[in-house]
This record gives sequence, structure tokens and C-alpha cells, in this order.
Amino acid sequence: MDRPLGSGMVSPIEHFVKRSFGTWRAQRSGHNLAFRHVEEVESEIRIAPADQQSPQLAELLALNQVKTSQICCPFSVTWQGTSDWDENATSSGDCLLVPVPDTETTGRLLRSQGYTETIPAVGRYHFSDDHIFVLITPYERASAEERVWFATDDLRLRVALMRTSSGRGVLQASFSSEIRQLED
Amino acid sequence: MDRPLGSGMVSPIEHFVKRSFGTWRAQRSGHNLAFRHVEEVESEIRIAPADQQSPQLAELLALNQVKTSQICCPFSVTWQGTSDWDENATSSGDCLLVPVPDTETTGRLLRSQGYTETIPAVGRYHFSDDHIFVLITPYERASAEERVWFATDDLRLRVALMRTSSGRGVLQASFSSEIRQLED
Repeated sequence: MDRPLGSGMVSPIEHFVKRSFGTWRAQRSGHNLAFRHVEEVESEIRIAPADQQSPQLAELLALNQVKTSQICCPFSVTWQGTSDWDENATSSGDCLLVPVPDTETTGRLLRSQGYTETIPAVGRYHFSDDHIFVLITPYERASAEERVWFATDDLRLRVALMRTSSGRGVLQASFSSEIRQLED
Repeated sequence: MDRPLGSGMVSPIEHFVKRSFGTWRAQRSGHNLAFRHVEEVESEIRIAPADQQSPQLAELLALNQVKTSQICCPFSVTWQGTSDWDENATSSGDCLLVPVPDTETTGRLLRSQGYTETIPAVGRYHFSDDHIFVLITPYERASAEERVWFATDDLRLRVALMRTSSGRGVLQASFSSEIRQLED
């Protein structure tokens, strides 16, 4: 399971990001809570270290007034998915993510692109004592609350909620099981 | 959100069980990880305080050598569900559950019937610092790991894993969103 952490060892965020590197086959079940319908999406997700010298990274840091010395293990996520709602349509995209730790177990996560809006987003993360990565990202009209954890080294789970901006209602809940693919 | 807890207030387990009382409409997406297929089950779940004087409760306590003074808020769960695999078949059942706290946030949960086997089961629970109820129940050939939490007072979420008995593999992962129904 998770290694104990102490001085001289990697921080929880670095450990978590490094465990995530690789290619994952994801199955996502999205529960629309108002209409009680379910959408199934299959996708392939690739998580890799980001190029520390890229202009995109420099731009994201400048936009958020964050210095290179403040960040930890920036990474990129690339995905391609197919929904059972429209099998002919594939969605795909990529995103640069940059952790900016405040403490050992908390910080901000900068994103070049949000899930629901195409503008850059900044979320706040923390790790629970159960080693779950919890990320809350406010958007203009909603906020995303995600919990991501490793069930095994090769199985990552994610529960995502879209809350109304007041935080009192939940519009959608989704669950993803992500299985690590062997690299070619 | 969750109330702060202190002396003289209800314990986390009592608070959690009492919030769960009611009738819930559940949507469960079961991910079979080896075969990558998804099963959708809709069900109605009723959670209610158990009759403290029932012979079934006395029997379950005797079987586990637990005294009445050790238990907290026993409750019953009744469910009826329909799967998209066979719409003509409904599954239904009921179960008596009895928390036996060790500390404020940990304990055992006695069950008159397990999920995968029809013999009584005993699980261990704890609450994470994120107020997630985590329950691990060993069975003969597998173990169930469940996380249940309230997204709002009227939306309960549950992630359940079936692990191989060694704990290294996961056979199935499922996600349920449970919406409180208004009582008649």
C-alpha cells in the first residue's frame, strides 16, 4: 500500500503524481441526478511528466503569479473517449496540471483547461488520512469536487461531483475505474 | 455539512446511521474489471432503526458474543432492485446491521447477512478525517471494501470494491448514488 512519508522522502503529492504516470483504460459511469439517466464513457488516458521548459507551463505560471520554485511535478493528461450516447463521436483533449503545494498535504492545482469550461482553472487539493486526493475546483456557475485514489498500483478510482455554485445541490456524480495499460 | 462532535454530542457512527434513516432511490453502476462490462442496477433502499427487542438482534449478538451495552444504534436495511441484465428479475432482501464501537471513530459492524455470502459477516469500520465511513468485511474467498459518504443530506454515495482474499487484486468496483425519497 502507500509508503510512510517522512523527511527526506517524497511528499504525498509527488508520490501520487508519480504513481499516476502511464496509460490508463478508463470506464466512467456518469449519473445525472435530476433525470436519473446514466452515461457510460470509455476512454484512454495518458498521464506523463510535463516538459519543465515548455512555453505553456511558463504561461500558466505567469497567469497565476506562481514561481517555478513553488511548484511540484507538473504533468500532462491526454484523453480520448467514446460515449454510449453517440458512438460515432469521440471526445479528446489534453491538459497541463501543476501542483503548487502549501503544506505536505494541501495546495493548489493549476490547470490549463477546466473540465466544464475551456478557461484555465485553479483548484484546491488535500489528502485525506485515507490517502485520497481530494480536489475542489470552482467554476463560474458550478464547482467540481473530485476524489481520486489508488485501490492497487494498477487501479485508480475517481468519484467526481458537479455541485451548484451554492454547494448545496449536486447536478452530476460520476465514477471512473482506471486500469493501467502495459506500455508498448 | 457535518456537525462538529464533542463530549455530550452524538458519536460519528450514531450521526451517520441517523442521517441514513429513510427511503433511498439508488442507481448502482457495477464495473467488472476483468471483463470491462458494466451492469446498471436500480433499487429502492429503506434504512430504519431496528427493534431493540427483536429475537434476530439477540441472536446476532449471541453469535458474536457481544453485549447489548456494547452496541450503538442497530438498524435494518431492506432493498429491492432491478438490473439492466435481466429486467424481469428483481432482487430483494433485508439485513440487520449492528455497530459495535471500539473508539469514537472505529468499530465492528455485525451483519445478519453478507453481500456475497448468505452467512453472517463481521466488518471493521472507521471514519476518515473527510467523514467517509469505510467498512472492510472479510468473506471466505474475497473481501469487501466500502466507502459511504453524504454529498448532501439527501445524496449518499457509495463505492464498493470486491478484493481477492490476498487483497492484491480487485474483481469488481461499483458506485451507487442514493437519493433520498420523500416519505409518504
